[in-house]
Amino acid sequence: MLIEVLHSASSPFLPYLEDKLVIVIDVLRATSTIVTALANGCQAVVPALSPEEALEKRLTLPGSLLGGERHAVRIEGFDLGNSPFDYAPEKVGGKTVILTTTNGTRAIRAASEAPQVWLASFVNLQSIVHSIFREMERNSGLEGIAIFCAGTEDRFDLPDILCAGMLIDALGPEVEVNDLGEASRMLYRAAEGHLIETICRSDHGRKLLSLGLERDIIYCATTNILPIVPVLADGEIVWLADDMRG
Amino acid sequence: MLIEVLHSASSPFLPYLEDKLVIVIDVLRATSTIVTALANGCQAVVPALSPEEALEKRLTLPGSLLGGERHAVRIEGFDLGNSPFDYAPEKVGGKTVILTTTNGTRAIRAASEAPQVWLASFVNLQSIVHSIFREMERNSGLEGIAIFCAGTEDRFDLPDILCAGMLIDALGPEVEVNDLGEASRMLYRAAEGHLIETICRSDHGRKLLSLGLERDIIYCATTNILPIVPVLADGEIVWLADDMRG
Repeated sequence: MLIEVLHSASSPFLPYLEDKLVIVIDVLRATSTIVTALANGCQAVVPALSPEEALEKRLTLPGSLLGGERHAVRIEGFDLGNSPFDYAPEKVGGKTVILTTTNGTRAIRAASEAPQVWLASFVNLQSIVHSIFREMERNSGLEGIAIFCAGTEDRFDLPDILCAGMLIDALGPEVEVNDLGEASRMLYRAAEGHLIETICRSDHGRKLLSLGLERDIIYCATTNILPIVPVLADGEIVWLADDMRG
Repeated sequence: MLIEVLHSASSPFLPYLEDKLVIVIDVLRATSTIVTALANGCQAVVPALSPEEALEKRLTLPGSLLGGERHAVRIEGFDLGNSPFDYAPEKVGGKTVILTTTNGTRAIRAASEAPQVWLASFVNLQSIVHSIFREMERNSGLEGIAIFCAGTEDRFDLPDILCAGMLIDALGPEVEVNDLGEASRMLYRAAEGHLIETICRSDHGRKLLSLGLERDIIYCATTNILPIVPVLADGEIVWLADDMRG
């Protein structure tokens, strides 16, 4: 099975997705935050491309919350920002959250042609690996996996690539990868012993540090603490439940 | 000084180039071949975006040769392909070559707004490093360096990134880099002891191997054998001569 890593979902050369599982990664912070929200009892996360689209969607979803950031800062008038610490059980339990972030929600939208779209981050990585192995055993006609790193605009984002590399490394030496997949595995192995430091030195890490968000980085660089696979279904991100999938 | 590495020159988010030195890298094989051609006495290489543009340019350059590839194969009717071994002294000595390749010549063209455009590859890397240090000493108003990896379409190309990493590594620990610059340095350090094997395993490497071009890969992965810095001047690529630059 071929695993292709893409540095951003805004490439004009996206692969054919209709027979693929797409895994979207936005470590700092959209996918880490969505995993956390679902773990804390949030019913569903609805991705929106813009604050305007988020406001429109709320009209059809009474009782929902608005979450999101631009330039790493909470959007004015929104209930929640993009920090996983905003998504505590007492805030999001039982609620639907409409979320818009600079890169993450765009990557999720770009993936939506694929029959399956999952969301990965360091905090839920082991669950993603287990679910991929189960998917391979089910032999469900899946022809490959595309890993969409959200990136920053069209730029390569080291935290996302390291997370992709950890995933590929965990799948074992037999998987076939593209050049960026090979590079991400090499980078993960080189950074494995000092992941937090490497992420703090990245462009996005330094930006969050300058905003006093060190706690967010440390949380988002923590591996395998939440047993959740968020999946896109009918425009909403929900738990991947075994019973949903036969 | 900030050094930004770009995985491809086809990004819609190119940095501001007018105060930068751009270094274009296309290890397999355009920049390796151009360096070789100039070392073998070729007078100038004129980059063309398409075979049609190359044919047009020849009308104004009598006596010139046509070189280039599509899908790694020589273009029908052209004098030379894209293998460095095509550019022997007896073929290119004293001649101008009009060259079109799938990715390399496009990256060179995309860089042309910059006041200085140089071409790097493993074969001339040490000369590039020396020239950068000299440029820094001259304190010529240069605000930064952008390294354009030619890539493959919009895709990340591991051989190009490894070459960028070798360059950044050689410039020492003080240089400031973007995420892809940091990643390329990490990748180069991880692959340094087995560069040829890593390049052979890359997407582009495997493609050339399948065409029987192992000799080209081994040559293009050889470091520091040619003391040449090709520079773009008035649409032509020529030697960077010290006396040209005051």
